[in-house]
Amino acid sequence: MAGVEKNKSRDAIVGVDIGGTKMMATVYDADFNILGNCRKKSRGKSGNDSEKRVVKVIREALETAGSPTISGIGVGSPGPLDPETGVIIDTPNLGWKDFPLAALLRDAFGVPVVVDNDVNVGTYGEWRCTSLRSYRHVLGVFPGTGIGGGIIIDGKILHGFSGAAGEVGHITIALDGPFCGCGKRGCLEAVASRVAIAKEAAALAARGDAPYILEQCGTDVNAIRSGVLARAIEAGDQMVEAVVRKAAYLTGVGVGNLINVLSPEAVVLGGGLVEAMEALMLEEITRGADEHAMPFLRKDVVITAAQLGDDAVVMGAAQLIVEHLASGKKGNGK
Amino acid sequence: MAGVEKNKSRDAIVGVDIGGTKMMATVYDADFNILGNCRKKSRGKSGNDSEKRVVKVIREALETAGSPTISGIGVGSPGPLDPETGVIIDTPNLGWKDFPLAALLRDAFGVPVVVDNDVNVGTYGEWRCTSLRSYRHVLGVFPGTGIGGGIIIDGKILHGFSGAAGEVGHITIALDGPFCGCGKRGCLEAVASRVAIAKEAAALAARGDAPYILEQCGTDVNAIRSGVLARAIEAGDQMVEAVVRKAAYLTGVGVGNLINVLSPEAVVLGGGLVEAMEALMLEEITRGADEHAMPFLRKDVVITAAQLGDDAVVMGAAQLIVEHLASGKKGNGK
Repeated sequence: MAGVEKNKSRDAIVGVDIGGTKMMATVYDADFNILGNCRKKSRGKSGNDSEKRVVKVIREALETAGSPTISGIGVGSPGPLDPETGVIIDTPNLGWKDFPLAALLRDAFGVPVVVDNDVNVGTYGEWRCTSLRSYRHVLGVFPGTGIGGGIIIDGKILHGFSGAAGEVGHITIALDGPFCGCGKRGCLEAVASRVAIAKEAAALAARGDAPYILEQCGTDVNAIRSGVLARAIEAGDQMVEAVVRKAAYLTGVGVGNLINVLSPEAVVLGGGLVEAMEALMLEEITRGADEHAMPFLRKDVVITAAQLGDDAVVMGAAQLIVEHLASGKKGNGK
Repeated sequence: MAGVEKNKSRDAIVGVDIGGTKMMATVYDADFNILGNCRKKSRGKSGNDSEKRVVKVIREALETAGSPTISGIGVGSPGPLDPETGVIIDTPNLGWKDFPLAALLRDAFGVPVVVDNDVNVGTYGEWRCTSLRSYRHVLGVFPGTGIGGGIIIDGKILHGFSGAAGEVGHITIALDGPFCGCGKRGCLEAVASRVAIAKEAAALAARGDAPYILEQCGTDVNAIRSGVLARAIEAGDQMVEAVVRKAAYLTGVGVGNLINVLSPEAVVLGGGLVEAMEALMLEEITRGADEHAMPFLRKDVVITAAQLGDDAVVMGAAQLIVEHLASGKKGNGK
């Protein structure tokens, strides 16, 4: 693939995306061509076997690739995690607590491993593996069930002191606003995530103002996913459209705030809501950002939709381990 | 002075603080001892002579220092400015527009010059020249007439793509809140700056609820400065105290937001309001931050008052030029 950092060792590398429900591993050659690939559910029927499944998904991806020699493994995983040590601090969905993921994979495969937060890694992939790579300061915002963020400053992922910088979903934009999953009120996530939209759409359905939603999902907030919202708008549920537009605009307010603080050159928008309704989301987020960023900071900033879809994390993870290897570091699994 | 970067060339250096109303230059020897110093008003009676006055304040500081050989000049100036070139983009108070300040000083004194935003330079001084220097990620927030911010990430001032990152006063925290000087609504500055407080205090005075303020300043928003607010609270104006506490708490909400995004290790608070009412401001800002930062990002973060007072900018500016010289760069005036 053009434009990405090549793997100077010429050995293959592996990018891994660990999600709450599924895992994916992709094997790339030194020129970033795909050699093989495997997907699995993150948990088997028996429950707490996620660590075995990670090893298995990588092994099977390597088998489909013809078992090449590999020089390293990059991993994007849900956080919070420590990017220095590759230890997952707490991921209830996977049953992991203080779990040394990088060390496990290094022991299993005998190669350097880097582990970083999945949103950071996805942002990194969108930056390094697309036309955005010429920029030095890139902000990723991913509105879906929550609102995740990844921040690239001068070519590096911002981790901050805690290792967990970039919690853009928990900036307060509406004082005394609705409650958030974090326990606070008025967070961006509480007014603009898919859950915040679904809550309003369920109420519309209950009142008879969202007939498509009512027919497809009833009034269950959890059932009202991004794809259903998109189809409801296509089917003509006007109040659903108004709710989605308002939420997207508020995401834009958050993006405007972040432009004022960070002054990125490019903002990349992904996540379930953007994937399901790209044009509408981009329009409203851009409007919110235009109205809330200072003109001299907003000027010349590219706001664009993510391009890599489901591959952003595996590509970012593979890119991350290639750069770690090139920098002479051994990765966080050492 | 202990703990600061020493000037390896052993020549003296100059730190300059250019404000809207006054200018100050301090000459330091290679060990950061003060050799001389000069202050002037930023504009003479005749008006647009600020550039001559900058040169003059440095010349006179050098004379009081015994005219030592200098190796460089560091400058903190109001922005917006371009820290790469040292060009001041627009400072109406000084009559400067696209004004090449760094080049002017380099030509006048024949040495490398660095120019950066005064809030960045003040944060840099508070970081490098106090006990905060062991930290790598430091956030400075300065509530006064406006609310300025400086961001140090991994030991470097964050400038971002535009050169002007760190506009923390213009993050929206109260959707549809009061109008801000920037034209938007609900900015942190619109609800928590000295002007936001003075506006409420003037209304209290007009209604007879702030007797000390009424007696000292009448109901003129511009007359109600930080010092008067502090004295009104000491004199027992309880509603003024409630207004100041609320504003400080809201500044804390902004600090909490910034902790969530940036994950600093230390937050340093300065500016007119903090200087006038340090204990009260620190208490309320800390409370707001505690309630709005994610616990794992808030954990172990030091929140402290600025220690250098009026010297923060000259010290930060001197430190900045020493580090530029040590790094082998010639400064932005080259």
